[in-house]
Amino acid sequence: MNQLTGACIIGQSGGPTAVINASAQGVIQTALKTPCITQVLGAAHGIKGVLEDKLYDMAQEDPAELDLMKYTPSSALGSCRYKLADPDVDDADYRRILEIFKKYDVRYFFGNDSMDTCNKISKYMQKVGYECRIMGVPKTIDNDLNGTDHCPGFASAAKYIATSCAEVWQDAHVYDTGMVTIIEIMGRHAGWLAGSAALASLTGCGPDLVYLPETDFDMDRFLSDVKAVYDKTGKCMVAVSEGIHYADGTFVSEAKTSATDGFGHAQLGGLASMLAETVKQKLGAKVRGIELSLLQRCGSHLASKTDVEEAYLAGQAAVEAAAEGFTDKMVAFQCTRDGSYECKTVLEPLDIVANFEKKVPRAWINEAGNGVTQEFIDYVLPLIQGETDAPKENALPRFARLKKVLTTSL
Amino acid sequence: MNQLTGACIIGQSGGPTAVINASAQGVIQTALKTPCITQVLGAAHGIKGVLEDKLYDMAQEDPAELDLMKYTPSSALGSCRYKLADPDVDDADYRRILEIFKKYDVRYFFGNDSMDTCNKISKYMQKVGYECRIMGVPKTIDNDLNGTDHCPGFASAAKYIATSCAEVWQDAHVYDTGMVTIIEIMGRHAGWLAGSAALASLTGCGPDLVYLPETDFDMDRFLSDVKAVYDKTGKCMVAVSEGIHYADGTFVSEAKTSATDGFGHAQLGGLASMLAETVKQKLGAKVRGIELSLLQRCGSHLASKTDVEEAYLAGQAAVEAAAEGFTDKMVAFQCTRDGSYECKTVLEPLDIVANFEKKVPRAWINEAGNGVTQEFIDYVLPLIQGETDAPKENALPRFARLKKVLTTSL
Repeated sequence: MNQLTGACIIGQSGGPTAVINASAQGVIQTALKTPCITQVLGAAHGIKGVLEDKLYDMAQEDPAELDLMKYTPSSALGSCRYKLADPDVDDADYRRILEIFKKYDVRYFFGNDSMDTCNKISKYMQKVGYECRIMGVPKTIDNDLNGTDHCPGFASAAKYIATSCAEVWQDAHVYDTGMVTIIEIMGRHAGWLAGSAALASLTGCGPDLVYLPETDFDMDRFLSDVKAVYDKTGKCMVAVSEGIHYADGTFVSEAKTSATDGFGHAQLGGLASMLAETVKQKLGAKVRGIELSLLQRCGSHLASKTDVEEAYLAGQAAVEAAAEGFTDKMVAFQCTRDGSYECKTVLEPLDIVANFEKKVPRAWINEAGNGVTQEFIDYVLPLIQGETDAPKENALPRFARLKKVLTTSL
Repeated sequence: MNQLTGACIIGQSGGPTAVINASAQGVIQTALKTPCITQVLGAAHGIKGVLEDKLYDMAQEDPAELDLMKYTPSSALGSCRYKLADPDVDDADYRRILEIFKKYDVRYFFGNDSMDTCNKISKYMQKVGYECRIMGVPKTIDNDLNGTDHCPGFASAAKYIATSCAEVWQDAHVYDTGMVTIIEIMGRHAGWLAGSAALASLTGCGPDLVYLPETDFDMDRFLSDVKAVYDKTGKCMVAVSEGIHYADGTFVSEAKTSATDGFGHAQLGGLASMLAETVKQKLGAKVRGIELSLLQRCGSHLASKTDVEEAYLAGQAAVEAAAEGFTDKMVAFQCTRDGSYECKTVLEPLDIVANFEKKVPRAWINEAGNGVTQEFIDYVLPLIQGETDAPKENALPRFARLKKVLTTSL
């Protein structure tokens, strides 16, 4: 073990999840008690906070508020969507990052999402010979990260989606009149979330049809699928991924259509509205399009306890591994599902993780491309288990209230 | 006390809520143990089930499943939107209802929503001299029923809305870039639900602006309200009732607009999308429109315990009062909020309740018409208190599974 003493930075990036702050809490609380880490800095809005020298001193926070981070959705330190340039083309950002690292004697960097950013910083620091340990802490509701059984954040979104689908099913089946309900779910390129709608079937109230972006979408086949269910039962509930696309790769949501107004204008209101309108015109059925929108990724009141605990564990493991001497790695999960579910953290090289999208295996989608198999259900189900003890105030969520004291104001 | 022995019917109608089944459960379980009630019949899809002689024998149900009704959203017996004719114009339906009442010796009718239906049946039975006790059990998320402090179903929807707004606020504030979020909430003519979004402010994460249908909407004023907040903070979160309308009464959601396509076509995707698009075009801000859609009325996983208990109580009180000899009444709530909250049931004449919409008092809306006052918050807050013990199976809701055995199949 190679002792390295210095400050650490944690930065969060990308889209919010219900549990990314659980990972940040794992990093922060573990780092605060790790002797070789002299200062724990939180980057305001991810790598942008590093570039702009906007760093919070996490030791200034009330420990009780830090404890609430795991029940607080979205990124408590702020997020960004900022892609670092190829350092061989433009290394200005990297030189600035190095400058800040030197200013605060930063020897540890924990990237709570954006494995691309982690990987690029890691390789640059190696190249310039600045000793620094870089660890990625995974996060994405999309669950499309390579090298890990699953990603923190996915399960809570999946639980939100399955629960909401089951409830909407009850609502959509209340009248003895016909009704087609189309629920639009996030996931531009991977169908993990849309597929999770099928978990609602375990309650007896699941979608009849599920469409993932892993297979090509065909509007005629879709309409005939819906018609078949509707003709038989008078109802049809459909879950669709926002990323469904035609065989030529065009997103269905972006396709021009004459369904609205006869002028071929693309429609507002998203995919669910567009499909609902198409069903209405073609089948004459009463329809309702529902977009789960941001709700599905920030629904911490329905977070999976398993997900929250694993997210925290990922953050903790990153700090422990870095303190032990590891660098250039992402914390990943290795799980077994034989009989009981077990999950342990392992380390994967950042190289193999960054910028590769893990899709739902074709074998986990039914042959007709309108549903998922039991393997899919068996994979997701252990991940959504357990309810959190998220505290309430006024019967509403009590989120963490961080002071976010900038180092420059100390 | 005038003893009346015979069967009872319970029928549910109108739009689903998270707790209408708690009221039905209150009626059914109380009726099953009331000696003068000889049979407890559930009408399939409300009054339509009576007209079609589709009646379930509730004594056939597993008591454990009946116990789960209070955690099951939507109407377990099925609902309808069926308006009985004026009996002076067309009494065919009433004669049929009387026929069914006689067939099963029905002496008690409990209408779980549609006070209009209850009132008309009650008056008809009085006119023809058929002894029958008719009681209304209120229900509506819209909270617009006259004669009662509030309506079962409203509080759970309000809690869902406030919680979701607080979570979305966290999501919408994650980047250091500008963002306007517009959340569309149910309530065609009354703003109780949209106003409840303001409860999220108690978490520190509330909407900046709230628009109710009780005041006229002005697009220019709206845009200037949004701009003022956005210019100051870089963000703006808006809650709007689906029922906002211009001074001439036109719903904003139905107004033709050239915002989409320059051809003046009404837009799909609802009000939130339309307002978001307008803000985007006028202010150039990044926008996101979110429609809470059916989710807000069937979100039983976030139901208020107070609401569930009161809903049950309303059903129970209806049966007890009817057995005692009362008829032609609706169960209403009388509440005190001085110091602690207390709620008791009283009986109101069906006449004064039916077909009158109770709006949010103008004094509970701020002068600018873009927010609610502390009085509004103080009114709603006690109603959303408490979490239910809704059981889960596979970490998902375990809804009641009723056998729904038709009397004709007995």
